[in-house]
This record gives sequence, structure tokens and C-alpha cells, in this order.
Amino acid sequence: MTHRCRRSSGLWKIVVWDEPFFQGKKHEFTSDCYSTLDHGFSTVVRVTGSFEHCGFQGQQFVLERGEYPCWEAWSGSNAYHVERMCSFRPIACADYGRSRLMLFEEENFQGKRGELSDDCPSLPALGWGSNAVGSFFVRSGAWVCSQYPGYRGFQYLLESDIHAGEYKHVREWGSHVQTGQVQSIRRVQQ
Amino acid sequence: MTHRCRRSSGLWKIVVWDEPFFQGKKHEFTSDCYSTLDHGFSTVVRVTGSFEHCGFQGQQFVLERGEYPCWEAWSGSNAYHVERMCSFRPIACADYGRSRLMLFEEENFQGKRGELSDDCPSLPALGWGSNAVGSFFVRSGAWVCSQYPGYRGFQYLLESDIHAGEYKHVREWGSHVQTGQVQSIRRVQQ
Repeated sequence: MTHRCRRSSGLWKIVVWDEPFFQGKKHEFTSDCYSTLDHGFSTVVRVTGSFEHCGFQGQQFVLERGEYPCWEAWSGSNAYHVERMCSFRPIACADYGRSRLMLFEEENFQGKRGELSDDCPSLPALGWGSNAVGSFFVRSGAWVCSQYPGYRGFQYLLESDIHAGEYKHVREWGSHVQTGQVQSIRRVQQ
Repeated sequence: MTHRCRRSSGLWKIVVWDEPFFQGKKHEFTSDCYSTLDHGFSTVVRVTGSFEHCGFQGQQFVLERGEYPCWEAWSGSNAYHVERMCSFRPIACADYGRSRLMLFEEENFQGKRGELSDDCPSLPALGWGSNAVGSFFVRSGAWVCSQYPGYRGFQYLLESDIHAGEYKHVREWGSHVQTGQVQSIRRVQQ
């Protein structure tokens, strides 16, 4: 999972504290961190760049630059309650303006297909006939798909430079929830 | 609050159930509803169009078309726990592709200013120097601003045809939380 940064690590910085609301011990990271527990840290707060979570396994949270004073700030309302953010890595996204994502109704790129090049807060509003997606092919960019409309619920990260952009089955993007329920999708911006 | 629908009400439909997961009594609404309690309903599930919440007061939830099987699906993780969705109305947005929003650092359109015409998952990443906004002027369209990056936390609706698009103070957009903390903003799409 290392060496995935395409830009200088100087562009990314994540500052973590071990207590909510920017209290307690503080540490800065500018590259991948497999386990904050090795450093005695758990709570993430100030972010430069985009990151995901947890031994590179488990629940994912895509964090854009900004302040997250507590677990509730970065999690979704239906997240299972694990307040510790154990690991994170920068997300490479060369040119989000040229992001393109293909959606397929069924796994292995079968069934009805659709293509996105812009943020979509509601797939049903676009005419996608189901509340689920069977497989994805990321032509370019990095995307966040979400369980519910309006970017709510569980998040899953899709990247063109992982698996050659091929996500053939829900197991390949949703390691923590085995459902293909996806109702909103947006680009990762830098 | 009635008569705000600019389009045929036939374009909007919200179906509510009084139990989670589409169980119990069901009712369809195609226009404003001041109080679902008059109808004995509380839980909102299938949505066509965009809606907000609660006697047109209190916590707001912008709902795009899709399925919301339970309270956790439409609320934010830091929402105060009121599972009842008591009221809703369609949001008019004539042409979201032409949406434009002006932001001001201070109330009454003072201080540093910025302008958006696209979704922005992180105001800090755009160079906005603060995690708050003092006032908004909606030139066109309807927008949802959120407390945290990535469209998380409390939501506030901003519309060009309400108050002539002028939101001079946090009191005018955030009736339920008196903070100007806004770190992400996106357009309401139809």
C-alpha cells in the first residue's frame, strides 16, 4: 500500500490528536500510516489531501482538507461505532476534472451500464433503475460512492490506479459491508 | 411556505411510512406538508425531488431522489436524535448547471469574498481561510452547505428565491445551530 503517492508527499499532511477537539498528544504524518496505534494516536483532525482509514481494511472514510474535531465529524450516521482511526494514506488523483467512471448493473461488467464524469448526489434521479451497482470500471480519477443519496451512509473509495480501475464485485470495494447499495457518487477533488 | 413550487407538483413525490424499512402505514405527498403528524406519519423513505424537514423549522435534511429506509440514512452522524420527519417541501431549482453562490467572510456581505459555481467538498482546500462563513448571497440555484468537509454534519439549505437569495447572518440559514461553521457546499440537482 506504500509508494502509492504520485505527488510530493509535501502536498499532504494529516495531523492527529489522541483526544477529541484537538486535545492531547499531537502528531503529523505526510505519508502512509499503517497503524496510528504504534504512535499512540487515534483521533484525526486537520487534513491536507484525502485519506482513508483502518489498517487499509474495514470501514473507509474519505477525508478532504479541513477540521474534524470528533468521530461524528468524519463518520456517517450509520457507521458502526469505532472511534479509532487506525490507518490512513493519501489518495492520488491526478486531474479530477477529467474523472470518468463506468457503472454496471451486474458484477463482472455485465448488464445495463452508465457513465459519470461529474458528481451525482442521486443515481436514481439520473435514471439508474436500482439502488445498487454490480461493478465499476474507473477510467480516470478517484471517486467516492456512498450508500445513500446525498453522500450519506457508508463510503467506498474507487481509484483508477488500483486494480487497474477494475472493481468487478462488491467484495472489491466494500470490504466492510457486503452490499452493493450505492445511491450517490462523487469525484475526489484535490 | 406554500406555493413555492415552481414546477408541476407532478414532478415531486415523497412516500412516507410510519415504521422504518418501508413498513407500516404509507402515504404519498406531491406538495408541501406542514406536519406529517396530522396524517399519523413520521418516517420518510422514497423520494422524488428534493425536500427539507420539520415544521419548516429545526434541523434540515435535503433529500434527493432515492430510498431512505431509516433515520440514520438521511441524518448526519452528529444530528440530534429526532427520528420524526415532521414536514417537508419541494425545493425549486430551475437550472442547477447555472448555479452561482457568493460567500463572505463576515456577516452582511462584508470581508473576504469567494464565488462558487460547482460542488466543493472542501472549502479549506479551495483556499478559504476559515472553517466558517459569515454570509451568503445566492445568485442562482439552490445549494446545500454542510458543517464538515465531504458534505458531513449539519446541513443548511440556501435558495435564490428565498429572501432574494440573501443570507446575511447565520441565523438566516441555520435556525437549529447557531454556528457559521461551513466546510463543504454543493448544488441541489434535480
